Amino acid sequence: MRNIKMIVAYDGSRYKGYQKLGDNNMTIQEKLENVLSKMTNETVEIIGSGRTDMGAHARGQVVNFRTNCMDSLDKIQKYLYEYLPEDIVVKTVEEVDERFHSRYNVKSKTYMYKIDNNKYHNPFIRKYATHVSKKLDLDRMRKASEYLVGEHDFTSFASSKSKKKSNVREIYSINIKEDDNVIEIYVEGNGFLYNMVRIIVGALIDVGLKRRAPQDIKYMLESKDRCQSSDTAPAKGLCLWKVTY
Amino acid sequence: MRNIKMIVAYDGSRYKGYQKLGDNNMTIQEKLENVLSKMTNETVEIIGSGRTDMGAHARGQVVNFRTNCMDSLDKIQKYLYEYLPEDIVVKTVEEVDERFHSRYNVKSKTYMYKIDNNKYHNPFIRKYATHVSKKLDLDRMRKASEYLVGEHDFTSFASSKSKKKSNVREIYSINIKEDDNVIEIYVEGNGFLYNMVRIIVGALIDVGLKRRAPQDIKYMLESKDRCQSSDTAPAKGLCLWKVTY
Repeated sequence: MRNIKMIVAYDGSRYKGYQKLGDNNMTIQEKLENVLSKMTNETVEIIGSGRTDMGAHARGQVVNFRTNCMDSLDKIQKYLYEYLPEDIVVKTVEEVDERFHSRYNVKSKTYMYKIDNNKYHNPFIRKYATHVSKKLDLDRMRKASEYLVGEHDFTSFASSKSKKKSNVREIYSINIKEDDNVIEIYVEGNGFLYNMVRIIVGALIDVGLKRRAPQDIKYMLESKDRCQSSDTAPAKGLCLWKVTY
Repeated sequence: MRNIKMIVAYDGSRYKGYQKLGDNNMTIQEKLENVLSKMTNETVEIIGSGRTDMGAHARGQVVNFRTNCMDSLDKIQKYLYEYLPEDIVVKTVEEVDERFHSRYNVKSKTYMYKIDNNKYHNPFIRKYATHVSKKLDLDRMRKASEYLVGEHDFTSFASSKSKKKSNVREIYSINIKEDDNVIEIYVEGNGFLYNMVRIIVGALIDVGLKRRAPQDIKYMLESKDRCQSSDTAPAKGLCLWKVTY
């Protein structure tokens, strides 16, 4: 069987998240599987690099699936482009080693979180950014982000619903860019707990608004207690930017 | 009476254009007038710098209206922000001289036209850009644009529905920027005929795709015949960027 790897971009506004839910069709996984199954006359199951939340987006979600279909990669991509809704676009299609697994083989993931920091929101990015009308102090946010980089137990920055064996993860970098009152926060790490990027951004917003001190992040981490950190920032600002293998 | 000037941004995707149509409510003008009339208990009529087409957008539409309402400018802006739909945002509100008129006093207008030149479209800008999958040659387009700058009779670049006394307009500049396969064409002039920017962009796309030579633009202008130029580019790529007075 062929093992096909694809990079997928999607505007998640209309969807109930990446992961298949069953009978309803409004998940990214189901949309992709339905078109692939129709194309191949097989029951295709795709493996994603990870879930994305309801309303969150992806520029570089990676998925793979196995198939006996012998169509050219170009033909597969064109078929998907024709039959997928216009808010889901397969950017690349390649054949990979049979052992490649989109989730198990992840080396690092980068998320981008967008904040519209205009006093009144910019209507063109309203579905792709969280609006914070009060001016954020980026220097404070950058200082705060330094406490998060490195290997830590991120229990305080995971949804209490998260049930992983270990909450230790490594964040490689956090970069905060700003252009014309639109802030982009890039977080790269070896793995992320449930809601981890959104809670990190919630904490950075608290620091940027001077509700918290930058060094509070240190205490949040040490407490290993979800109640000590910040609110989860809204999903619509979140975008799975890049996955490396 | 006070004369209030406002700068308005809108995502025109859901609307039948700027200009009021009567009994239906899906125009930008009607949305603004309804909220202003409710706020002031007057029948407010707004004057826009000009129309924008169904599906076209604005970052800097300018409107003005007269009112006896004595609320502070800040209060007016907050009221509008609360009651307008989230795809229409009033960016600034100021009181101006009683003689100021949004349409008659225009000195120049700048439109921005966005083209997504990725092979497969970027889902995040699908409502704000026209997708052209074949690579456009920007050098050719820039060369072509030089023929358009200056004072010309733009009959060939106006909808045949346009019924102006004179089709002579001056284009001050055309700037073509590109970043990561997204092209932005900025056209500034003293005034524009019906569909003029979209037909200009249609012609530049023809040149960029090598269907036409850059110097064909010269003949298009000289012919003063709509049939000699190019197709009208789609409205969704068009954005009224800035109006100066």
